[in-house]
Amino acid sequence: MAVTTTSVAETCAAAKRAARTLASASTEAKNAALAAAARLLEERTEGILEANAGDLADERAAGLADALRDRLSLTPARVAAMAEGVRVVASLDDPVGEELEHKTLASGIDLRKVRVPLGVIAVVYEARPNVTIDCAALTIKSGNAIVLRGSSYAERSNGALAAIAREALAEAGLPEDAVQLLDVGAREGLAELARQEGLVDLLIPRGGEGLKEALKSVATVPVMYAAAGNCHVYVHAEADLEMARRIAVNAKVQRPGVCNAAETLLIDAAIAERFAPAVLADLHEAGVELLGDERVRALSGETAVGAAAPEDWGTEYLGLKMAVAVVDSVQDAVEHVNAHGTGHSEAIVTSDEEAAEEFAAGVDAAAVYINASTRFTDGFEYGMGAEIGNSTQKLHARGPIGMRELTTFKYVARGDGQLRE
Amino acid sequence: MAVTTTSVAETCAAAKRAARTLASASTEAKNAALAAAARLLEERTEGILEANAGDLADERAAGLADALRDRLSLTPARVAAMAEGVRVVASLDDPVGEELEHKTLASGIDLRKVRVPLGVIAVVYEARPNVTIDCAALTIKSGNAIVLRGSSYAERSNGALAAIAREALAEAGLPEDAVQLLDVGAREGLAELARQEGLVDLLIPRGGEGLKEALKSVATVPVMYAAAGNCHVYVHAEADLEMARRIAVNAKVQRPGVCNAAETLLIDAAIAERFAPAVLADLHEAGVELLGDERVRALSGETAVGAAAPEDWGTEYLGLKMAVAVVDSVQDAVEHVNAHGTGHSEAIVTSDEEAAEEFAAGVDAAAVYINASTRFTDGFEYGMGAEIGNSTQKLHARGPIGMRELTTFKYVARGDGQLRE
Repeated sequence: MAVTTTSVAETCAAAKRAARTLASASTEAKNAALAAAARLLEERTEGILEANAGDLADERAAGLADALRDRLSLTPARVAAMAEGVRVVASLDDPVGEELEHKTLASGIDLRKVRVPLGVIAVVYEARPNVTIDCAALTIKSGNAIVLRGSSYAERSNGALAAIAREALAEAGLPEDAVQLLDVGAREGLAELARQEGLVDLLIPRGGEGLKEALKSVATVPVMYAAAGNCHVYVHAEADLEMARRIAVNAKVQRPGVCNAAETLLIDAAIAERFAPAVLADLHEAGVELLGDERVRALSGETAVGAAAPEDWGTEYLGLKMAVAVVDSVQDAVEHVNAHGTGHSEAIVTSDEEAAEEFAAGVDAAAVYINASTRFTDGFEYGMGAEIGNSTQKLHARGPIGMRELTTFKYVARGDGQLRE
Repeated sequence: MAVTTTSVAETCAAAKRAARTLASASTEAKNAALAAAARLLEERTEGILEANAGDLADERAAGLADALRDRLSLTPARVAAMAEGVRVVASLDDPVGEELEHKTLASGIDLRKVRVPLGVIAVVYEARPNVTIDCAALTIKSGNAIVLRGSSYAERSNGALAAIAREALAEAGLPEDAVQLLDVGAREGLAELARQEGLVDLLIPRGGEGLKEALKSVATVPVMYAAAGNCHVYVHAEADLEMARRIAVNAKVQRPGVCNAAETLLIDAAIAERFAPAVLADLHEAGVELLGDERVRALSGETAVGAAAPEDWGTEYLGLKMAVAVVDSVQDAVEHVNAHGTGHSEAIVTSDEEAAEEFAAGVDAAAVYINASTRFTDGFEYGMGAEIGNSTQKLHARGPIGMRELTTFKYVARGDGQLRE
């Protein structure tokens, strides 16, 4: 889209003003804006695809790897899916105004703890145009304004999509400045965004460790880092071994490039002899490169298993590669996970309730799965609508960042002249 | 207490190990530890007072201002109050294990969102020995370990009190390492504490802006800043003016040195002529030095009111001093508060429900009072037991930091072999 000369600070200030209006907007008005956005996405599909074609034809896009190019590409089906996602968000309960507590204090004061929007959310994201609409929908419904900073690769697509979100707001009588798309120019713009204290209430960077490190040293606004995931599947002595094979393969292979995919398989020593050869063969057949500790390699049979180096236990491969170790007990598995994991998603396969409890209580992670794949940690799967990211922080938000995670609360205290003695 | 040579990292690692045990401790065991602590505080009152006398007799204490010396001083009544505070915490519901959500996902997975302890809480605090016990009680009950870094002025008192908390844990069969008192030595110790990533899950500094700034540049662990409070009382056109006079005086005078005391009084223009002379006289009589804008000064009658400088609207006096302004509407009051306030506690005095709603919705603060003093923002008044501090952040904790604010949550998902398609 056209380059403007509006500064980051001015853009954030405009968002802040709009946020004050959106904070008290009715659920009906917000849903009307979302309905309008869904309709406009459908009506303007052609224009969106043209803008996207422009991004894809840009010389910069020529150098993109296939997977990244695929993420950047829009199709009629993908635009329809965006519209459907916006309608799902409209159908979810409005978190704003939810009463979290209500009590009468000893002083006689009536105290309510009420959910309110955070204000202005800034999101920095990779070259995935659908994020523009997903994030705008979640912030509008939760009464926040959003400042989007996408990738220069997706500049035209994002411009077309943000324009639709703004038009939809205006159509519903809400301030269009509640959706802002920053010019993607110099790297300094990022640091400037991260220093808008008093204007930006929360910054969510989606992207790799480089972006995280770049922000850590400069950010003065609150930042919630979308997470890296070094996830594990632990197959316990009392596991259904057929189920365990399917879960191990699904957690690794179904979509290896995402944060809730498994990176390490832990096999209990009690069943290692029976289980290891079969699961290693399954994984190998699914195209997974395997690295094992000595005990695993001794049981690998005909499957090629390389020697795992110490750093393999801490690596998020984000691809078809997996580390495999034998552990001697639930306690050992918990210790391995807590020593090497990133606190994202951890699974145990077992039919022993006690082992399941011990693992679930001992593992320090956002999500623990008992007899299910780690791949389910996701805002949509959790019934939260779309998600803005996944948090492995323990404060405020843990796991999928949905609408509730974009809110705070306020105490509203009503008295009849109470004084503190 | 005796200086030890244990490093900050070793101390935090010991706390982390103890935290894993405390996280799954039963409510009964935690309450037994608190009961033992309360009993030991009573039994050992004499020894505690001797240690405190040592702190007060130390040459460093000679230079303390009266108010600070008072905060450092223990008496039999104050020790009894500490024991009582510990018993109140024991009587509160255990937040750990609380089920925050429970649903069946489309995939058939049973998903529970369960409250769990954060892990290791570090608290840096001023020369108030009672904080040692208040914080230890809240962290024990919420299943956390605590690393305490008190003031060197209170070294002996804190040592005696922390030893009691550790003995009480051991008596209840819990790891005494869940309460750690750091040696208060060089300033570097503070930076070292703030950089124990992976060991300290939350650092709470209580203290002035200097401490806050010192930490901001070095901390790598999550920090929750106990708040500064620039709080306002706004007297609306439809206020009960007698009530308004009492609330204005109480909010300013009842304990002027704390964060929820009011610093600015806003008077609606519609009642300024009737109200200003009376409330200014009340405040003056209560010993408050007054600074006003031009409109206030024109109505001050016989009361001396200095000219407020622009920076007065943003100053937390923490003493018997107050800024006073006339505003033209609820909207103006909201704008003044949002421009100058710190998001702590804000009050409106009005009998007009619409004005109350507008103020409560518009003001961006942790607590909003309608017809009550700002002084009620307090964990004890809010029925949360003691508090570790007060947060003006919007993320995770807002307002009093009690036990729930010392927890996070975990998703526990149970399936029967679910795979992601």
